[in-house]
Amino acid sequence: MRDALVAAAFRLFPERGYEQTTVDDIVALAGVGRRSFFRYFPSKEDVVFPDHERCLADMTAFLADGTDEDEPVRRVCDAARLVLRMYAENPTFSVQRYRLTKKVPGLRAYELSVVWRYERALAEYLRGRFDGRPDGALRADVIAASVVAAHNNALRSWLRSAGQGDADTAVDHALGHVQAVFGDPSAAAPAEEREDVVVVISRRGAPMWRVVREIESTLGRD
Amino acid sequence: MRDALVAAAFRLFPERGYEQTTVDDIVALAGVGRRSFFRYFPSKEDVVFPDHERCLADMTAFLADGTDEDEPVRRVCDAARLVLRMYAENPTFSVQRYRLTKKVPGLRAYELSVVWRYERALAEYLRGRFDGRPDGALRADVIAASVVAAHNNALRSWLRSAGQGDADTAVDHALGHVQAVFGDPSAAAPAEEREDVVVVISRRGAPMWRVVREIESTLGRD
Repeated sequence: MRDALVAAAFRLFPERGYEQTTVDDIVALAGVGRRSFFRYFPSKEDVVFPDHERCLADMTAFLADGTDEDEPVRRVCDAARLVLRMYAENPTFSVQRYRLTKKVPGLRAYELSVVWRYERALAEYLRGRFDGRPDGALRADVIAASVVAAHNNALRSWLRSAGQGDADTAVDHALGHVQAVFGDPSAAAPAEEREDVVVVISRRGAPMWRVVREIESTLGRD
Repeated sequence: MRDALVAAAFRLFPERGYEQTTVDDIVALAGVGRRSFFRYFPSKEDVVFPDHERCLADMTAFLADGTDEDEPVRRVCDAARLVLRMYAENPTFSVQRYRLTKKVPGLRAYELSVVWRYERALAEYLRGRFDGRPDGALRADVIAASVVAAHNNALRSWLRSAGQGDADTAVDHALGHVQAVFGDPSAAAPAEEREDVVVVISRRGAPMWRVVREIESTLGRD
């Protein structure tokens, strides 16, 4: 019944416009009563984003399941991939919703509050992992924001391309950028490689990102 | 009259609650007509954030006034400081609003959409500066999100402390973290220093942030 309500809503929104479609219109088309609608969705906005609550719960559970062995930045990047998976499961629906959300300010605001909750879930996990370290909360917030921004940069490109192209590759690339900046690459390296010495010679004024890139290419981590 | 409306609203909100206060209550206390209210504020939410539109305009103008000589990350950090200044101009009001916003979901959503607009202004500027570079748009989005997250981390600490403490120092420290990660430190260095050579020796598996910290302390950039 939940799926039928979502399907009915997304048949009506393009026809009548989101604002002009009432909950009564949706339940009439789905052939159910008003009360059934509100059993599944607190409001009309919620029917537009039917899977975010589940995805948020999955993300929280995934983060809670981690161990101290997990490299924290990698863990939050993997958590962000759960969101991508939700979008990629149903490209047609995701693209349709993306177009609708762009047109309706109320939905845009709703989406921002969902994104904020994902970001807080990632930040809370990182705050726990960085607890007691200098600037732990600050680093946690900055990394969580970076992960969300990188993920959404790739996700939006994919949605703009109408769901063509490989969303996984685009998101992996974007999150790889964040991991290169903030992550601990030693976490992935076999123990015997960890003690190698790398010498980097750089001009004093070289931009930090160039130094980082130089180190990365020396290490063959591209 | 605009200030009188804001003052009246913020006298009524703590007394009656935000939801229970109507625009009619506000105009009655301010001694003006309904139409005057809507001349200044499109909605009741807007009276809670009376300075954000001006601040957004100031930020956009500040970014547009920049030259190609500006180090881009420093420029967006300076732009973010305009937001801090707006909050710090009137600590009592800012703290009162912070407490109100935490309690009212609709205001929280409004605030998120304002923050999003600041972030987009910073990202658009950076996209322009990184135009044509590999991953320019991705880097722009990630840096803009990092700047906003760092700024808000410090701003929220200050608001939670009821506006005690030095907001400028806290925000400078937080933005300094972002500049250290993403910025081009050569932009600040006198030309004669730029050609010095720095040698960094590091274990292959050392976390990137430790390498960066090592380079920074070698360069005396703390």
